[in-house]
Amino acid sequence: MLQQDPYSISGTEQETPAASETGYVVGADIGGTSLRLALADVSGKVVAKWKVSTAGIRDPEVVVRLIQEGVEDLLQQKRLSRSSLRAFAAGAPGVTDVDEGVVLATSYLMGWRDVPLRALLEASLGVPAAVENDVNTAAIAESKIGAAKGIRDFVFLAVGTGIGAGIVLNGRLFHGMSWSAGEIGYMLVPGTSVKPVESGEPGALESVVGGEGIKAQWQSIWREDRTQLPRDLVATQIFDHALAGESLAQTVLQRSAQTLAYAIYNMAVVLNCPLFVLGGSVGMHPALWKLTQEILAQRDKRVQPRLLRSTLGPDAQVNGAIHLAIDTASSRMLSS
Amino acid sequence: MLQQDPYSISGTEQETPAASETGYVVGADIGGTSLRLALADVSGKVVAKWKVSTAGIRDPEVVVRLIQEGVEDLLQQKRLSRSSLRAFAAGAPGVTDVDEGVVLATSYLMGWRDVPLRALLEASLGVPAAVENDVNTAAIAESKIGAAKGIRDFVFLAVGTGIGAGIVLNGRLFHGMSWSAGEIGYMLVPGTSVKPVESGEPGALESVVGGEGIKAQWQSIWREDRTQLPRDLVATQIFDHALAGESLAQTVLQRSAQTLAYAIYNMAVVLNCPLFVLGGSVGMHPALWKLTQEILAQRDKRVQPRLLRSTLGPDAQVNGAIHLAIDTASSRMLSS
Repeated sequence: MLQQDPYSISGTEQETPAASETGYVVGADIGGTSLRLALADVSGKVVAKWKVSTAGIRDPEVVVRLIQEGVEDLLQQKRLSRSSLRAFAAGAPGVTDVDEGVVLATSYLMGWRDVPLRALLEASLGVPAAVENDVNTAAIAESKIGAAKGIRDFVFLAVGTGIGAGIVLNGRLFHGMSWSAGEIGYMLVPGTSVKPVESGEPGALESVVGGEGIKAQWQSIWREDRTQLPRDLVATQIFDHALAGESLAQTVLQRSAQTLAYAIYNMAVVLNCPLFVLGGSVGMHPALWKLTQEILAQRDKRVQPRLLRSTLGPDAQVNGAIHLAIDTASSRMLSS
Repeated sequence: MLQQDPYSISGTEQETPAASETGYVVGADIGGTSLRLALADVSGKVVAKWKVSTAGIRDPEVVVRLIQEGVEDLLQQKRLSRSSLRAFAAGAPGVTDVDEGVVLATSYLMGWRDVPLRALLEASLGVPAAVENDVNTAAIAESKIGAAKGIRDFVFLAVGTGIGAGIVLNGRLFHGMSWSAGEIGYMLVPGTSVKPVESGEPGALESVVGGEGIKAQWQSIWREDRTQLPRDLVATQIFDHALAGESLAQTVLQRSAQTLAYAIYNMAVVLNCPLFVLGGSVGMHPALWKLTQEILAQRDKRVQPRLLRSTLGPDAQVNGAIHLAIDTASSRMLSS
């Protein structure tokens, strides 16, 4: 029996499936607003996609039923039999025990605690399944086919509603002692609040630089006599206006980029990591990326991490899940 | 040929030397003010010590000559022949390329750049040698025989003149991409300066919480009408007075502990690491340890790293070097 390393994502230790190997896998990205699935062959090539809204849905069993529907729809789209599905993997929006296949905790939005997601999925789909934190699946994808392709040490930073990091060291995902390495929403940097955080509240860093935090920044300085823009804008709209020259929006962009640059700098100092990849709907915004990069370049010559934008964008999570499913298919085959 | 893992420090992968194995090793701690050596048998038991001042000495070749003198003195103390020396290892006060045996950079005090220390030592001593960053050798010792004995994930924090971290993950020293993981003197936390750091200048964090930074804090708030204490005090004296109830000294202690707690919290968040060990002359002070621990306990329930004091104190670096020398002796023997 060959021993597979489930956290190795460099792809070099893994044999490419022989051309004769057939079958398909499905990768999923379970999000607070949508559930995205993609069907791929065992080389990782995506052949069909599926998406559904998850707004208001919190029950894990409902999510699993939606996944089952999605998988069946994908197979039908390509007229594939159920037996051609080899494995399934999902990225979940929370701290995930990969060994046990359990989502330990998600944000208050979904409110999951100790959900045995892998077991639920395997019972529902009848194929080997794997689960992983969604920021980590995105990091897997960036490492396999994205901005960090072939790079063994980097940090993927997802800035969406909140902020999280997927840390890859020596070509492997680094999970930490209790699966929550990279939960940097709580980091303390100059300018963040130092007030102790209550359970369920957003952390100090994400209160400034996550999507919700950026919106809150805008609303806290917004006044009718200061701007012609409406009070009700989301982070990417604020950054669009900053890019177009609106000065109040530029104030928010400046503070967001400054704070993000401090957080990246701190991680670069602790981990001695040379590359950061910015992803997530907010993190992908060119204005945030450009200004953060400029601020980092000015800090000091000693610590100069490179900052790239994700090349996969919103597809990163699903693509990473596909690669995780492919690894799952081969490791289960080898050990059976 | 057996493949040894030179960074593994858990000791479980390593065979205990058989009782029949004989010989000795020397470990050294090269510091800016003193050079400390200890002779130990292959079980790690220290049998003799040697120490000399290095004040004003910068030339690496002079340091190597002093080491040679020290090694000879130690062997003479115990009436041992030169041939009984199996290996040597040193902790150096700077970023060290362990694979190449080169000290890449030390602080401006010593001013070393790309010093091939291992080669110099092997030429001088005629035995296999190893070099490592001194904070990392201290971490090795805490892991083998100190406060973190048997623990696979922890961070050793050395607070002396400056501040540095030795990071142990999965029972192995984590060095980072270019040997400078844990160089946290540059970390940015609430209350530190955000001014870009010039080359050679102390970093933002160590400007507040390193020994020199603590002294500078004291001098910046000291006024004759505010305290009966003299303006010229070192960090540990300031903390002694804080412990005795002097209010200006308590202000400095409070800010130092606060800042240190933020730095520890940030590392705990990034690395998901459950244990920190405080060492170094300033870090060992009970007042700093106690207050930092209290501040950490108040922050939040989610991130609660344990904070212990080093049990080895100023002997940590030399003891770690001894263990590194023992590993060097066995790996060179196995591969020859």
